[in-house]
Amino acid sequence: MNFELLKTMCGIHAPSGNEGAMKEFLLAYIEKNKASWAVQPEVYHGDGFQDCIVLKFGTPRTAVFAHMDSIGFTVRYQNQLVAIGGPQAETGYVLTGEDALGPIECELLEDDGDLSYKFARGIQRGTDLVFKCDFRETEDYVQSCYLDNRLGVFNALKVAETLENGVIAFTCWEEHGGGSVPYIAKFISEKWGVHQALISDITWVTEGVVHGEGVAISMRDRNVPRRSFVNKIIQIAEASGVPYQLEVEGAGSSDGRELQVSPYPFDWCFIGAPEDNVHSPDEIVHKKDIVCMIELYQRLLEKL
Amino acid sequence: MNFELLKTMCGIHAPSGNEGAMKEFLLAYIEKNKASWAVQPEVYHGDGFQDCIVLKFGTPRTAVFAHMDSIGFTVRYQNQLVAIGGPQAETGYVLTGEDALGPIECELLEDDGDLSYKFARGIQRGTDLVFKCDFRETEDYVQSCYLDNRLGVFNALKVAETLENGVIAFTCWEEHGGGSVPYIAKFISEKWGVHQALISDITWVTEGVVHGEGVAISMRDRNVPRRSFVNKIIQIAEASGVPYQLEVEGAGSSDGRELQVSPYPFDWCFIGAPEDNVHSPDEIVHKKDIVCMIELYQRLLEKL
Amino acid sequence: MNFELLKTMCGIHAPSGNEGAMKEFLLAYIEKNKASWAVQPEVYHGDGFQDCIVLKFGTPRTAVFAHMDSIGFTVRYQNQLVAIGGPQAETGYVLTGEDALGPIECELLEDDGDLSYKFARGIQRGTDLVFKCDFRETEDYVQSCYLDNRLGVFNALKVAETLENGVIAFTCWEEHGGGSVPYIAKFISEKWGVHQALISDITWVTEGVVHGEGVAISMRDRNVPRRSFVNKIIQIAEASGVPYQLEVEGAGSSDGRELQVSPYPFDWCFIGAPEDNVHSPDEIVHKKDIVCMIELYQRLLEKL
Repeated sequence: MNFELLKTMCGIHAPSGNEGAMKEFLLAYIEKNKASWAVQPEVYHGDGFQDCIVLKFGTPRTAVFAHMDSIGFTVRYQNQLVAIGGPQAETGYVLTGEDALGPIECELLEDDGDLSYKFARGIQRGTDLVFKCDFRETEDYVQSCYLDNRLGVFNALKVAETLENGVIAFTCWEEHGGGSVPYIAKFISEKWGVHQALISDITWVTEGVVHGEGVAISMRDRNVPRRSFVNKIIQIAEASGVPYQLEVEGAGSSDGRELQVSPYPFDWCFIGAPEDNVHSPDEIVHKKDIVCMIELYQRLLEKL
Repeated sequence: MNFELLKTMCGIHAPSGNEGAMKEFLLAYIEKNKASWAVQPEVYHGDGFQDCIVLKFGTPRTAVFAHMDSIGFTVRYQNQLVAIGGPQAETGYVLTGEDALGPIECELLEDDGDLSYKFARGIQRGTDLVFKCDFRETEDYVQSCYLDNRLGVFNALKVAETLENGVIAFTCWEEHGGGSVPYIAKFISEKWGVHQALISDITWVTEGVVHGEGVAISMRDRNVPRRSFVNKIIQIAEASGVPYQLEVEGAGSSDGRELQVSPYPFDWCFIGAPEDNVHSPDEIVHKKDIVCMIELYQRLLEKL
Repeated sequence: MNFELLKTMCGIHAPSGNEGAMKEFLLAYIEKNKASWAVQPEVYHGDGFQDCIVLKFGTPRTAVFAHMDSIGFTVRYQNQLVAIGGPQAETGYVLTGEDALGPIECELLEDDGDLSYKFARGIQRGTDLVFKCDFRETEDYVQSCYLDNRLGVFNALKVAETLENGVIAFTCWEEHGGGSVPYIAKFISEKWGVHQALISDITWVTEGVVHGEGVAISMRDRNVPRRSFVNKIIQIAEASGVPYQLEVEGAGSSDGRELQVSPYPFDWCFIGAPEDNVHSPDEIVHKKDIVCMIELYQRLLEKL
């Protein structure tokens, strides 16, 4: 599998609230590639969608949610930084961004929870910074900042190639409190009556979920999805022969939380490859788990 | 008052997210008993309602919300457990459930906040477990796990017998983050214009609310309902002669929270009998407070 | 600038959930004064709006949200108090309210986080109390309890005088978990297609935002609004010549949070004068910052 597309996306500046660059990249990618897809989707974006994109293929029964935003940092006063989402923060990490004075590549400093930057000049108040991308690929692994969730977006784009019936939604703000899923849920519920959702996102390597053993199907995290829907997914996964792992956590959350509490009766399940070094510049995922993720999504969108 | 129905319901396996058995029980109960009710309700369930049930009697002005789910535990990895909601957890409590290998009756172990089970065999990942029901009845008290909230459901079913105008909603996920109230609020607001709600749930015995002094009317908990609506309820309660107690707390929450923050202008009030030994296998409620709860609901649904 | 109107409003009893007195005051004020306004607004209140008020001027593109409620205290059992919102609590603060036995003026006692009152008689359970208003005005400053957010309401009323196109919403519960913004967002989105919002509220004096340097434009707080909208506001502010300060925080929230997570695609930005002694009886704001706030709102409602 060729990961050039993933590499490109991992380097795009799109912290929560400032996803415009990812939106523009995806719109251009879709425009350029959709002619080779099995079904031509309707593309919804712009007015009423903020920086989100919704693709509709055929007669949808299930929607895939992939968030485009990443964790990062906002410049506060003097050289202080405030976190966007929950980044791993260690002195020495390299951050990039841009303000009116030009491009920025600075060093993160962490001191007992206080975050600041070290740079040759002051950075304008409110500027947002992200990890500098150092994409690495070995025979078995890909490694980079922001596999969470450019890999979930990558999965959705691969699934799009053969998708006959379904919705794909590229969402914003997932890493920092949410805010786009509620109106997308409203849109796809009211327009197409779709109330099944798969959360195309990246999860954690733990004592129960390991590298290379297949895509993780999350039975719960901080949120508890409806058991009967999760059971249906596990049955389809079992019948498919695609390697998968069952995840059970008490913490962690996703776009699924916002579907859960939306005023629309969504069933949802988080399904994604596991990664180690979460929310750091060194997120790492096993390639086999990526392949399994794509294959399981293809199967689920057919069968659900 | 005969508590066989309550006893049966306290023994039904229905932790948050897996309320199917309670839904099936209630649908069968309603089907069997509704012929003897004063008014035949319209029954809404199934597609668009997940595992919830909505009953509509006559021309409704007020809705009763009674959650069907309970706290419990999910099997994680090895012999670990993760809480569903906020259960009281003590070593020695007996838990029950079922996985593909058959029925389970195991022991809960608690060690400095870490939860695990002790059982003759491993239990499948993701299996949910609940307290084993030991229903006890004395002249003055009922005692069991899950009086919260099978007693709130019991109250709603008793009220249903004579109800002329009103909605009764049996909801899910209340113990674990919610998720069904938002779409039920949408449904009853858009369909019948109903924006008054009573939360039929069980509260706490405290220094200010005691056993046997009547049903508790909660003036606030973590959430603050609209004062003018609470005042109207207290006036009706006062005029009714039904014994009641006023509750004021800074913590605790209910289905009322989801009505409060829904995009529909609901007024709501939590009204329920107080219990001791909250979220344990030994929840205990005074029978007099149950009788008062039912009587006050009957009166409120007439007068509001 | 004459601050009599502000002084009057700072003395009105309207803690979260009990905003009726502020609603009545505002309805009377609007009725009395609107004849002198540039455009006569449509006034929405009552059924479906709880204690909120919505004013619609001309053909609106942007809505101003100003919350009417304040922090305060609820009487629990014996002489205990429970906080409404997050009040500063110090022994000696004077609290006022009323119960069935008559008016109350008592003293707040704080002991290691426990709150209680000292008064010649017991106060009825559930009674809500607020800080006694001591409004002070100097050449440069106004000082009082509840500048947060009677000053945001004052700003909205001043803007109303010359407003040609726009919505002004007076909201409830902002200090205690919210609950009115969701249905107002629904109303103005569905009725007029308005999805731009300015949060007329009061922020904090910090190391980066000081008295007398102009109104604060908050680039983020606990919530991160869409960057492209905030940038547009900063450009308009810059072109206007109105003094402003950029705020960047990691904590704090507002009515903007509820717009962010509502099922409507709102862009929002918090814009308000900074105050010191937040949530105490001694909140203090520089008059120049108030003038800047009004002028910037006037400009933004024209240009956005």
